[in-house]
Amino acid sequence: MPVSSSPERDNAERAYVRAHLDDLHADLDAWLRIPSISADPAHADDVAASAAWLAGALTRVGFPIVEIWPTPGAPAVYAEWPSADAGAPVALVYGHHDVQPVDPPELWVHPPFEPTVVDGEDGPELHARGAIDDKGNVAFHLLGLRAHLASTGRDTPAVTVKLLIEGEEESGSPHFAALLAERRDRLACDVVVVSDTGMAARDIPSAVVSMRGLADAEITLRGPAIDLHSGSFGGAVPNPLHAMASLLAALHDEQGRVTLPGFYDRVRALTDRERELMARVPFDEKEWLAGPAASRVATGEDGFSTLERVGARPTAEVNGMWGGYTGPGHKTIVPAEAHAKVTFRLVADQRPEDVGPQLRAWVEAHLPDGIEAEVHTPPGGVSPCASDLDSPAMGALLAAIARAWDSEPGDVLYLREGGSGPEADLVDVLGAPLVFLGAGLPTDRIHSPNERVLLEMLYRAAEAAAHLWRELAALPRDTR
Amino acid sequence: MPVSSSPERDNAERAYVRAHLDDLHADLDAWLRIPSISADPAHADDVAASAAWLAGALTRVGFPIVEIWPTPGAPAVYAEWPSADAGAPVALVYGHHDVQPVDPPELWVHPPFEPTVVDGEDGPELHARGAIDDKGNVAFHLLGLRAHLASTGRDTPAVTVKLLIEGEEESGSPHFAALLAERRDRLACDVVVVSDTGMAARDIPSAVVSMRGLADAEITLRGPAIDLHSGSFGGAVPNPLHAMASLLAALHDEQGRVTLPGFYDRVRALTDRERELMARVPFDEKEWLAGPAASRVATGEDGFSTLERVGARPTAEVNGMWGGYTGPGHKTIVPAEAHAKVTFRLVADQRPEDVGPQLRAWVEAHLPDGIEAEVHTPPGGVSPCASDLDSPAMGALLAAIARAWDSEPGDVLYLREGGSGPEADLVDVLGAPLVFLGAGLPTDRIHSPNERVLLEMLYRAAEAAAHLWRELAALPRDTR
Repeated sequence: MPVSSSPERDNAERAYVRAHLDDLHADLDAWLRIPSISADPAHADDVAASAAWLAGALTRVGFPIVEIWPTPGAPAVYAEWPSADAGAPVALVYGHHDVQPVDPPELWVHPPFEPTVVDGEDGPELHARGAIDDKGNVAFHLLGLRAHLASTGRDTPAVTVKLLIEGEEESGSPHFAALLAERRDRLACDVVVVSDTGMAARDIPSAVVSMRGLADAEITLRGPAIDLHSGSFGGAVPNPLHAMASLLAALHDEQGRVTLPGFYDRVRALTDRERELMARVPFDEKEWLAGPAASRVATGEDGFSTLERVGARPTAEVNGMWGGYTGPGHKTIVPAEAHAKVTFRLVADQRPEDVGPQLRAWVEAHLPDGIEAEVHTPPGGVSPCASDLDSPAMGALLAAIARAWDSEPGDVLYLREGGSGPEADLVDVLGAPLVFLGAGLPTDRIHSPNERVLLEMLYRAAEAAAHLWRELAALPRDTR
Repeated sequence: MPVSSSPERDNAERAYVRAHLDDLHADLDAWLRIPSISADPAHADDVAASAAWLAGALTRVGFPIVEIWPTPGAPAVYAEWPSADAGAPVALVYGHHDVQPVDPPELWVHPPFEPTVVDGEDGPELHARGAIDDKGNVAFHLLGLRAHLASTGRDTPAVTVKLLIEGEEESGSPHFAALLAERRDRLACDVVVVSDTGMAARDIPSAVVSMRGLADAEITLRGPAIDLHSGSFGGAVPNPLHAMASLLAALHDEQGRVTLPGFYDRVRALTDRERELMARVPFDEKEWLAGPAASRVATGEDGFSTLERVGARPTAEVNGMWGGYTGPGHKTIVPAEAHAKVTFRLVADQRPEDVGPQLRAWVEAHLPDGIEAEVHTPPGGVSPCASDLDSPAMGALLAAIARAWDSEPGDVLYLREGGSGPEADLVDVLGAPLVFLGAGLPTDRIHSPNERVLLEMLYRAAEAAAHLWRELAALPRDTR
């Protein structure tokens, strides 16, 4: 049962955080200058430097154990601060120190790796690639843990705090599962705190409770052996671009459902309670559309709200498509090949490994005569994952968020995250429950130019982290 | 009425041609080394050099008038050899001295601008970009005219021979109509001899009798203002790649007909006689498929043979399509834009200027909510054109081809060319009938790597040209 609080106690975490904001600002300013783009081999040294910076920062905070763990790709940072309390629970914070690429560079108002504070509508914002995703979301923990120690007068945290901050999340975390398996003993924990998500709005305390999974595929269609002159052959031989258009057009039916046979078989339908909880999330669709989407309409699977479509329903999305002549002017060919990249977002209990066979069978069934297909589905993919809404750890999280947002635990809303990450690996390998604590907002423009973080969100998240360690420590030891 | 021939007369043209093949070889070897790629500004000097070479060659043949005509783009070559015979008809030969680009360069067995003689299945071939299209098809006229003069013992040709060899056909002849209008008086003629086509097979004397027209378009679809993170937005906003796939898939109905409203309104249906003439063309579909097409099947508009589909029916062809992420791996975005390049082959009496409005209206009608479209249809385009099968000029052509191929005029087959060119401008501006004399074969790989010409075809075409000048001169002057 969470320890009862008095105004002075609450204010202690807040007071410390607010008195040390400059430390957070200085940390972010230094860290965000490092262009740790994991997807670009030219930035491999920067990714390593980003890990080194974080290791140094964790050491300065006071973590007695700080290590850099190499992988076949980018290094991860591991830190551990054992609690002096016997039998204290162990919390593992997950995040990543690599960032998205910045293209197209010409669309950035401020250079992506020159962090700039901007006065925004909702308060000061910090603009940089990685400002929220994910360096902001990791940096608040540095301040939060210090606030916890200071406000409780402790030399060690009330819970053993571990951090695992990987370096390849934006590249699909290709070595993460192996790293977890290799370091399983060091990573043993009672709860995983994912620090790579966000909330519904600045003044709407909320927590992500699930993330979608991901499977990706590349389809190649081939027709003639070479590009053909469309005067001599056009109208009389199959055109792989026509075939690709027909194929992709057939991926969804009139109700917006994905047509791969078996695709929905393992989808666990939302319960009425879950739909009611989702409906409580204030969502201004017009504003959401007018923001980064600048989309005039919201459309998708019939029978579901926009939030349900993004958080709780699986999708097939064509991310890229190409073939034939794409230069200036025209070229009168029947092209030899057509290509498409498709990704599938998955929900519980779909499995990424099921998608490839479903897609292959469907492509074969839809292939016109004279066209050959190749469907490439790389191994891996990401499973969907979720928090147990009824767990004590969840209760601790809600209490912590409520305190930091001056709200009540029962008013903290649940969000279902449309994106994917390696969190399911954490569940699979470590067997610990997941909770999500993040400072992001839907308007942060992650993965786009002009990414930003609302600084007030980081301050409150730091407070929430401080509360969380205390709340977790206070849970009865046998119900954790 | 064609002058009756004796074996010695026929042999005179052939004898001369066969005795001077090395001149043709030397001409082509020199000319083909010049990479006159009109589509590439980096080769503008080469295009000019190609014109200069041709002007020099025509002068060496004996043309008294040889000029280089500048245009806002590439220069054209004009040559004229007036006949000394009063009232002699005037024939204008049309061709082009520019060539297609060569990409992808790595697929060429012999370098595209190092002409190489190769021993092929059907005899010696010359391999180079432009070997047939169109330098071979122009070069045979140099030898053919000399053979005409030598075999008739004349100092000037029996008909006034004019040549107009432009430099931008592979770039859509953007300045050609203006050039014709500007030089109309110089170009006055009684018949145009197009020298940019071919025959059905080495031993099947044939003549193209029509060419398709061409209209081109580029369609751009826009959805969100920027590429969006597909976790946060996927499944809930329109995806322009999905919309483009649906649009392009809807371009044809189940019978393979183009669905633009009004597209077929002006199409002049083939008469029974025309279909019967087309059916006489020996066409081994399996071999045609197995050749450059390497396509397993021939498909297209229901109710028409492959030859009819290529030569006598209009088409819509997607030549290129792109949008979103096309690099290695995957990128989980809802892309902002999708693009497609589409060309339309047209037949009599369709007009290129009708296509843009038809396409625009159709795109607007098919656009899903939330997607915006831009349809760009450049001005110009190419009208379809045809020979008058009953004209005396046609009779002269058939006689000339029959002589060179040791056949009978009635056995010369008619081909309907699927490709397009500026020949309709020649008809429109000069008001003269068209006939087509060409040495190309379907297996020449024009517009593809490893273009070649079968040398025997050039030799026979040179003979045919020599016969043609004599046959045209012999036509009764009032029936021309």
